[in-house]
Amino acid sequence: MKVGFIGVGNMGSGMAANLLKAGHEVSVYNRTAEKIGPLKELGAIAAARVEQACGGEAVITMLSDDSALETISFGAEGIIGSLSPGAIHISMSTISVALSERLAGSHAKASQRFLAAPVFGRPDAAAAGRLFIACAGLPDAVEESMPLLEAMGRKVFIFGEKPQTANLIKLSGNFLIASVIESLGEAMALVEKAGVDPGLYVDFLTSTLFGAPVYNTYGHLIAEKKFEPAGFAAPLGHKDIRLAMEAADSLRVPMPLASLIHDRFLALLAQGGQKLDWSAIAWLAARDSGVLGPAR
Amino acid sequence: MKVGFIGVGNMGSGMAANLLKAGHEVSVYNRTAEKIGPLKELGAIAAARVEQACGGEAVITMLSDDSALETISFGAEGIIGSLSPGAIHISMSTISVALSERLAGSHAKASQRFLAAPVFGRPDAAAAGRLFIACAGLPDAVEESMPLLEAMGRKVFIFGEKPQTANLIKLSGNFLIASVIESLGEAMALVEKAGVDPGLYVDFLTSTLFGAPVYNTYGHLIAEKKFEPAGFAAPLGHKDIRLAMEAADSLRVPMPLASLIHDRFLALLAQGGQKLDWSAIAWLAARDSGVLGPAR
Amino acid sequence: MKVGFIGVGNMGSGMAANLLKAGHEVSVYNRTAEKIGPLKELGAIAAARVEQACGGEAVITMLSDDSALETISFGAEGIIGSLSPGAIHISMSTISVALSERLAGSHAKASQRFLAAPVFGRPDAAAAGRLFIACAGLPDAVEESMPLLEAMGRKVFIFGEKPQTANLIKLSGNFLIASVIESLGEAMALVEKAGVDPGLYVDFLTSTLFGAPVYNTYGHLIAEKKFEPAGFAAPLGHKDIRLAMEAADSLRVPMPLASLIHDRFLALLAQGGQKLDWSAIAWLAARDSGVLGPAR
Amino acid sequence: MKVGFIGVGNMGSGMAANLLKAGHEVSVYNRTAEKIGPLKELGAIAAARVEQACGGEAVITMLSDDSALETISFGAEGIIGSLSPGAIHISMSTISVALSERLAGSHAKASQRFLAAPVFGRPDAAAAGRLFIACAGLPDAVEESMPLLEAMGRKVFIFGEKPQTANLIKLSGNFLIASVIESLGEAMALVEKAGVDPGLYVDFLTSTLFGAPVYNTYGHLIAEKKFEPAGFAAPLGHKDIRLAMEAADSLRVPMPLASLIHDRFLALLAQGGQKLDWSAIAWLAARDSGVLGPAR
Repeated sequence: MKVGFIGVGNMGSGMAANLLKAGHEVSVYNRTAEKIGPLKELGAIAAARVEQACGGEAVITMLSDDSALETISFGAEGIIGSLSPGAIHISMSTISVALSERLAGSHAKASQRFLAAPVFGRPDAAAAGRLFIACAGLPDAVEESMPLLEAMGRKVFIFGEKPQTANLIKLSGNFLIASVIESLGEAMALVEKAGVDPGLYVDFLTSTLFGAPVYNTYGHLIAEKKFEPAGFAAPLGHKDIRLAMEAADSLRVPMPLASLIHDRFLALLAQGGQKLDWSAIAWLAARDSGVLGPAR
Repeated sequence: MKVGFIGVGNMGSGMAANLLKAGHEVSVYNRTAEKIGPLKELGAIAAARVEQACGGEAVITMLSDDSALETISFGAEGIIGSLSPGAIHISMSTISVALSERLAGSHAKASQRFLAAPVFGRPDAAAAGRLFIACAGLPDAVEESMPLLEAMGRKVFIFGEKPQTANLIKLSGNFLIASVIESLGEAMALVEKAGVDPGLYVDFLTSTLFGAPVYNTYGHLIAEKKFEPAGFAAPLGHKDIRLAMEAADSLRVPMPLASLIHDRFLALLAQGGQKLDWSAIAWLAARDSGVLGPAR
Repeated sequence: MKVGFIGVGNMGSGMAANLLKAGHEVSVYNRTAEKIGPLKELGAIAAARVEQACGGEAVITMLSDDSALETISFGAEGIIGSLSPGAIHISMSTISVALSERLAGSHAKASQRFLAAPVFGRPDAAAAGRLFIACAGLPDAVEESMPLLEAMGRKVFIFGEKPQTANLIKLSGNFLIASVIESLGEAMALVEKAGVDPGLYVDFLTSTLFGAPVYNTYGHLIAEKKFEPAGFAAPLGHKDIRLAMEAADSLRVPMPLASLIHDRFLALLAQGGQKLDWSAIAWLAARDSGVLGPAR
Repeated sequence: MKVGFIGVGNMGSGMAANLLKAGHEVSVYNRTAEKIGPLKELGAIAAARVEQACGGEAVITMLSDDSALETISFGAEGIIGSLSPGAIHISMSTISVALSERLAGSHAKASQRFLAAPVFGRPDAAAAGRLFIACAGLPDAVEESMPLLEAMGRKVFIFGEKPQTANLIKLSGNFLIASVIESLGEAMALVEKAGVDPGLYVDFLTSTLFGAPVYNTYGHLIAEKKFEPAGFAAPLGHKDIRLAMEAADSLRVPMPLASLIHDRFLALLAQGGQKLDWSAIAWLAARDSGVLGPAR
């Protein structure tokens, strides 16, 4: 297929590379053009403006937040103004439910189609084409996009016709991960204050009932209080929990655990945690219990 | 080894059977004697009084709560009054940190030894000898007890010399499971109110980042709102979280997520949930969001 | 002074009347014009369009929410387009900190001045000129507006030069009132379940340490479970707590009690409480404790 | 009346003095006898043993906690063993609902009567006879004790026949005060981070909707971050909230705000706040928001 790809950061670069490897023709646009370089070797066409990435059957966006996607989508030279009728915008970023709904409406008005297809996985999974993809949108758009999605992910899950549902799924997933972090932070503050070695404790957990990778990954980070460098930075964790809560507010769904985690992120950011991994909210539980000095 | 076993309910009956199968000589006491019957066929000796189960090298207790273990341990005809000097009391029940510490002291005064060795697993794992065992106590007592523990569990984890540490580990583990339940309850209320099929959602979670059995087991119970019959009843869940919080209070460890879960259990019990599975706290999240009518 | 007044609902009608009684010349605009009628008898000039209320030294707005004020302020025929250079927009509604900041900027660009002067008090206090007013803005604008503010309130408190500070003060005040409601709800569920008559309990509280009117007013509403008709409706309470939390999020201030109250409002609205008084969040505490059946 | 008084610390000394001034014959026992000195000048009889304070129609206890009252009440030479049949034990300490219930039972078995009559007020109010007293017990015992209670308090409130109800009322009252502290702590962190002077803010609150003394007292302590010397020390605040939560647990009443406050106290004590006033939990809100350095 002939497609555009906008946003080739840590995640997007691997995803675009997998599209190229699968034989698709890909025009790549990035705000800072030098990141396109390595993809050119794989056959990517560099787009100097957004419009040049919008000439094909579909354009994929993988941007950092709502604001970046709004800027790229709306406005005179944006995606909506550039895409052909019938073409598909596949939004793979983690964005708000509200923006997803608004984009779906605007694309429909322009006789274009809109899919939300946010991903689960870190940069290494993106590079390996091993992402999990949650996708929602009109069935024909989903079907036509499948060759693209399958080139980037190991499995695609379809969540109905309303694109914003996929965004909600993504946000709920990050809420679940943050819940694991919070619960581990509290449990480990408890046992560590009682004299248990936290590394031994994590080994115990992960070799018994809590074998999922998320317990292994975050358990060891918390046991070692190793919150730098950030795999997923605290401000991003804060943002995603905030977006989940905004969706919950609109839907009238009280989520007290999400509220607790949201307050943890505020406390972390207020006390200088901007550059730490989001698992550093577990540091607050340790600090409040008197187990710990300052984070490192 | 020549040992006693006190408490052959759902869990204890399987554990005692595995001791017998491993060739140990086991005298069994139970408050209601008829439960001993099936074990006699495996070679168990029925003890009419607690004392008769206390004549060997060790006695194992597997009782429902602090109160039952206190009654059996202290008092004129209890374990402490009956056990020989040097013999070992292996307490495998889920009990409070405070009682464990008190028992360790009382046994030491009587020149006896005390081990805490609570277990992770449901009745089927107990019957299959597949329990995980968290054990703590003096090294010689641990070593001598190992043939017994290994006959009942698939893996034994040692947590130092203070018996109560193993009890704290057990309580922290139940807190972590309850945290999974709470997080799933909130996430599923959110996506269900947005129109997502909860069963599909659980399938998505467990085939992506949340592959641990605990997500699979509880995810499906919550998706189907199937809280009866109880695998682990709400009052037991409430009790364990309360015990975790009492330990946290003594150690001065704030655990806001444990507090949240504790309030969930109170709400569930106050509204008639005594016979439901402990995962029914997830029903409260759904009810508060308006997704649900009464629990079934 | 020659002023405009936009928004003569329950609160605004009394406030505008007091301006007229104090001798000011008042042009009144309201979306539904018939509400202006009674004020004409006091000398008000009916404005058919927003612009006609913007010809004087100042225009006062008293609208229901951000959205209403945005519509009236921005856009072709709005306040900003209509007000003379140097004139003052006095915003007395309860609005978000973000909108207040944005209005201050837009008015400054148009060489106009902007004051935030939100009020504390119910419609009877508005009618009696007994409101408390929290005011912030540039000193000259505050000074010139004082005759107007003093005609409407019994006391004016100045909170510096940034208008949005006054809006934050207002939101924090509503948070404090909601905190009183939540604490009373929990305390009364506790003592009522123990058999104490809730009315007697409120009498006890208000005649001892909790003599403030807020305890008296809400204590009796909660004791009698009398949440209709709404003095201040639940959706408004929800909105104000949400706005306080948005400000707290921007400022990086974790407010766990505000989070708890926010979740209470979501639960109340999700379960049909739209028309109840905001004190009905206390009904949730009683319901969760099993004290109560459905709200009335 | 001829009565005993046990426990003449900060509160008890003033209360006993008021009984003497009202003409009652008072035998005083205190663990450290020298505290009785000043009361002898007012006519008190020093009791060398508990028994010597138990020879009259009633004995009043005003002790620091459950443990002290248990020691004094039970055991060979305790109140229950010493009091005459028909005599009344008036317990005015802040104790647990469970102990109150147990004492009522034990006194009844010994043909004695038991009243719970905990007080609201600080040492200065005790000295001035200006305490508020919440009383519960059998009507005849209440009636006979009224001359004593009225000598110590400015108003007595009767809460039925079950003594423990009065203890619950007392605990609920301290919960309400702690709720005010928490809400002020959060509100002041919010406005202070926005640049508002906290002292000005408290003046605003107390001269508008929040005129109760509790807002004035604690508002100014929090505004000035002045948590030493402690008027009511953090460990006592922690204890009372814990007792309220234990009662709530028994009664199956979820109290999320009490849970939040309980965690605040644990955090405060875990981080060295033992000697601070209980209002120092508000310091945590400020600290978490980044407004503050260490407490002083």
